[in-house]
Amino acid sequence: MAPVPTEGDVLAMLDRLSNWGRWGADDQLGTLNLITPAHRARAAALVKDGVPVSCARPISTEITADTTVQPLRFMVDSGEGRDTAPRSRQLERRGAAEFIGMVFHGYSITHVDTPAHYFWDGKLYNGRSCNLITSREGAQVESVDVIRDGVVSRGVLLDVAAVRGRWLATGEGVMPEDLAAAERAAGITVGEGDILLVRTGYYARRRAEGPRNPSKDGSPALHVACMPWLRERGVAMLGTDTHNDMSPQPYPGIGNAVHVVGLVAMGLWLIDNANLEELARACAALRRWEFMLTVAPLVLLHTTGSPVNPIALF
Amino acid sequence: MAPVPTEGDVLAMLDRLSNWGRWGADDQLGTLNLITPAHRARAAALVKDGVPVSCARPISTEITADTTVQPLRFMVDSGEGRDTAPRSRQLERRGAAEFIGMVFHGYSITHVDTPAHYFWDGKLYNGRSCNLITSREGAQVESVDVIRDGVVSRGVLLDVAAVRGRWLATGEGVMPEDLAAAERAAGITVGEGDILLVRTGYYARRRAEGPRNPSKDGSPALHVACMPWLRERGVAMLGTDTHNDMSPQPYPGIGNAVHVVGLVAMGLWLIDNANLEELARACAALRRWEFMLTVAPLVLLHTTGSPVNPIALF
Amino acid sequence: MAPVPTEGDVLAMLDRLSNWGRWGADDQLGTLNLITPAHRARAAALVKDGVPVSCARPISTEITADTTVQPLRFMVDSGEGRDTAPRSRQLERRGAAEFIGMVFHGYSITHVDTPAHYFWDGKLYNGRSCNLITSREGAQVESVDVIRDGVVSRGVLLDVAAVRGRWLATGEGVMPEDLAAAERAAGITVGEGDILLVRTGYYARRRAEGPRNPSKDGSPALHVACMPWLRERGVAMLGTDTHNDMSPQPYPGIGNAVHVVGLVAMGLWLIDNANLEELARACAALRRWEFMLTVAPLVLLHTTGSPVNPIALF
Amino acid sequence: MAPVPTEGDVLAMLDRLSNWGRWGADDQLGTLNLITPAHRARAAALVKDGVPVSCARPISTEITADTTVQPLRFMVDSGEGRDTAPRSRQLERRGAAEFIGMVFHGYSITHVDTPAHYFWDGKLYNGRSCNLITSREGAQVESVDVIRDGVVSRGVLLDVAAVRGRWLATGEGVMPEDLAAAERAAGITVGEGDILLVRTGYYARRRAEGPRNPSKDGSPALHVACMPWLRERGVAMLGTDTHNDMSPQPYPGIGNAVHVVGLVAMGLWLIDNANLEELARACAALRRWEFMLTVAPLVLLHTTGSPVNPIALF
Repeated sequence: MAPVPTEGDVLAMLDRLSNWGRWGADDQLGTLNLITPAHRARAAALVKDGVPVSCARPISTEITADTTVQPLRFMVDSGEGRDTAPRSRQLERRGAAEFIGMVFHGYSITHVDTPAHYFWDGKLYNGRSCNLITSREGAQVESVDVIRDGVVSRGVLLDVAAVRGRWLATGEGVMPEDLAAAERAAGITVGEGDILLVRTGYYARRRAEGPRNPSKDGSPALHVACMPWLRERGVAMLGTDTHNDMSPQPYPGIGNAVHVVGLVAMGLWLIDNANLEELARACAALRRWEFMLTVAPLVLLHTTGSPVNPIALF
Repeated sequence: MAPVPTEGDVLAMLDRLSNWGRWGADDQLGTLNLITPAHRARAAALVKDGVPVSCARPISTEITADTTVQPLRFMVDSGEGRDTAPRSRQLERRGAAEFIGMVFHGYSITHVDTPAHYFWDGKLYNGRSCNLITSREGAQVESVDVIRDGVVSRGVLLDVAAVRGRWLATGEGVMPEDLAAAERAAGITVGEGDILLVRTGYYARRRAEGPRNPSKDGSPALHVACMPWLRERGVAMLGTDTHNDMSPQPYPGIGNAVHVVGLVAMGLWLIDNANLEELARACAALRRWEFMLTVAPLVLLHTTGSPVNPIALF
Repeated sequence: MAPVPTEGDVLAMLDRLSNWGRWGADDQLGTLNLITPAHRARAAALVKDGVPVSCARPISTEITADTTVQPLRFMVDSGEGRDTAPRSRQLERRGAAEFIGMVFHGYSITHVDTPAHYFWDGKLYNGRSCNLITSREGAQVESVDVIRDGVVSRGVLLDVAAVRGRWLATGEGVMPEDLAAAERAAGITVGEGDILLVRTGYYARRRAEGPRNPSKDGSPALHVACMPWLRERGVAMLGTDTHNDMSPQPYPGIGNAVHVVGLVAMGLWLIDNANLEELARACAALRRWEFMLTVAPLVLLHTTGSPVNPIALF
Repeated sequence: MAPVPTEGDVLAMLDRLSNWGRWGADDQLGTLNLITPAHRARAAALVKDGVPVSCARPISTEITADTTVQPLRFMVDSGEGRDTAPRSRQLERRGAAEFIGMVFHGYSITHVDTPAHYFWDGKLYNGRSCNLITSREGAQVESVDVIRDGVVSRGVLLDVAAVRGRWLATGEGVMPEDLAAAERAAGITVGEGDILLVRTGYYARRRAEGPRNPSKDGSPALHVACMPWLRERGVAMLGTDTHNDMSPQPYPGIGNAVHVVGLVAMGLWLIDNANLEELARACAALRRWEFMLTVAPLVLLHTTGSPVNPIALF
């Protein structure tokens, strides 16, 4: 078993795993460059049954223990009273519509992080100044609209919770050995251009035991010790069923180490707070842990991410 | 050429084209029932080149002539001043995040309409009372979360603007003959379970001439005269590059007739305000007007639609 | 001691205490009609010391046990990084500004209720249809902008908690005897055109023991048994340090009985969730429980109330 | 007639008119320190007729030429359909309530600016770092809640538009001579602790000719040349019927010069976008240009201002 890295080891990863300049000085896509048209075509070729599975959690306006900012939904037109209204009034208006609002970053909503979501030492991925993310203009670089054509590739589920036979404890990290064990269990090898989904069982626990507050109550996640593994394999995008960093943070001086090393150094796009429960069930039923995965973010200008509903297709 | 239907003809469509009860009294999916796993598998089999194309417009916070309610983006954390901040302050916070808010129904944002977006004579699709759409609870039925697994099928682009050699004028309708002509031009036949995309060129015009206000300045769209054609072909979902109803409305007593007949009577899910420009270019370049299409709405509970970024894959 | 009214007694109040038609069929002001210019001039004449006291609670974005919808504050421009920025960048922007948003009705924010906030049997104050309050247009009558010139009159504090020597328990009601006892203690008689403020000590308890959720944990308030007393005295506006109705509700068939009888039947404008702590201290120190009170709602069109900061001036 | 100051003269005002340290290093109130209890008592003593007049513009959700961010109002409960609903459904819910949201800074909404709204050379009023105004925490100093007890004093209207016999042109400034002339016309002398309201007629023009966009179409305002006059007279707060700076800006290198000199150097609190039309009419009718004025901002924590409805009482 590999030794747990020291804080110095993690800081060294910032250089060692860096993708700055790898795809040119203008690059904003980071590891998504690893997905080629060939990867997408091969992903489509995986489809046999035509069965789609959502990897997103529902978005609710309820305040729960893992709410940071409450999602909003307000009807700007409703149907109330229209069933008995005089016909003349019905004719005026026949629709229902709503305002929706949310801070999708946080602990509840399934969303994509662009590299601009994080910075280190004043720098974003590829060496840009974090001053380019302003209150007024938003993200002037590395905005989610740079992936307006979506992310489509082979998705692979490594179901660490299934391998362990239990959901991971709060503050427990997924280590490289866990990824390797889950690969063996699935009979699959993660490779270049893959979208890697890792299941800790955290969302299963939320369903079973109710919401908890990650910043107070802790949460499992991939340990930053896995980042060299991800770099070596050429993972294009990483998603888990947590906010993608362990809590409590093992390196308080660094903070959310997977975000720092992944987003800033590697330009590795993330999916936070996925729902991998139905997906895990489908994989187990079909005995297949690979599938076509489509992530279609909203084309939000100047924005550091997007709520998403990743669709796995078997 | 088929005669333009009278208002009475359109009202008769409400019965004649009705899908109420067709998939059971509990059905909320409407025409999406026409998409089977086999359709999805065949759609994936269409993929050859692995080239994805977004069918969404960008979401901007700018107020333009086609804004009804201004989209919002507010940073809850920005990067300003973090490049020169003392290290101790950098360590406190390293992320950027934002609130986003929008009324996605309207004339600007690419979005899905669920059947609950419209009602007629007090009834939603499948005979439910419109009283089920309330200010407080939102859409208690036919909410967009019923399609949490997304809509994946063959997409077909009928490029009416290309066939005509110009964008359609405001107030001009796409007629069944236009659909037939575009089919011939594409060498394709729209069939059961397809997601039909119809290009009027309205968004090309917006790009060329700037935004205009559909309710004042008019807009083209599919004429409601096409609805029997859609019903007969078994179209599962309809998307266009307009808000999906002609303006000025040809039947003021009915209003948005495509919405009324499509959403309410047929349970036909819609994509409004698509961007079909890059798609049309890709189709023309590849000489293929069919592709795999993935529509992945946000899993918004109690909501009559969702902003989306439909991804076509060739 | 007066007997506690039965549900039938309360329903009878709807007729007996009704002010419908009293100030004409077009009236929207209800009991605020009782405030004449002479009342305002006399209120100003009460001012001796020139000491102002706010009767409002702070508005915070924090989620607490008494949050229903979280108040929002997002900076659209901040000052971060402007101290060390090159002069050229400073010159571009020198301001800070924010978006604020809130559902002011609820349990936390000090606000005015217009009569349109409530209805009974489909009717608003003065017999109007509650259909005039729509999702799209908001309050088409009895909107807070009808008092754009503010409410200025003599304010009287009846400090029921001080008379009892303790804050009221959850579910405990202020009865007419309590009002009379507090009048005696203050050496004051509530009269026509007064703004009556009643202190239960609920906000003192919140400060001491932390927030609780009125709908789960209960709250004290004026008992609806006091409404005849208010009508007889000619109270123009009522404010308390609670949401102005007891919880649990003593008349589940009626609901928030003070709101129903007060707002709907009497047209009695309310101030909910006041902070009467500093006011009570000032009154006790000065041995004066009357003062000039100015309530200046925002001029919100089509809105059933407004957050306010009522200012008492001694 | 005094010469128009050069840019150098205006920059020199930053030192010459500075109130930094005048009321201690901890001061956040700036010129509001000039209002004493005696001023408030004298203001109340001005009241004779008991006639209140609002100085606020209505807040509407409409998008107009002077909208920067659209104000929002969404009903979280409406009255629709409750008039004909079965009694059982009426009993469930009897209230109407709404979400309101706005960026009150801008060109439309009557609001208070705290000194924290502006900074110069990285500093806020009293020498604080502008870094204290952050995206996440908002205004950590000089927030509007420091005046939770409101601003009450003598208000004086100087009706420059009436003296000139016309509304001021866009880009036209009110000069010290105009203030002096308006004082003579009103037979009044502005003095220490006064809230000075200056009418340019800009809002009258908006009513007559419709909204225009100040940043494109220009607007009148107090010229920064008046600041020494305000400092000398001891004005405690300044309000006008514009956004309080001329457009186009006469000193592009400085920007909004009244904001910079007033808020930052002097700690002079501002009321932007007042409605002085009804006030001017009342003053003219009563032949009195002084009155009691009450400004009661919302007690918003960490916020650089508040929408307000200033109430003049005659």
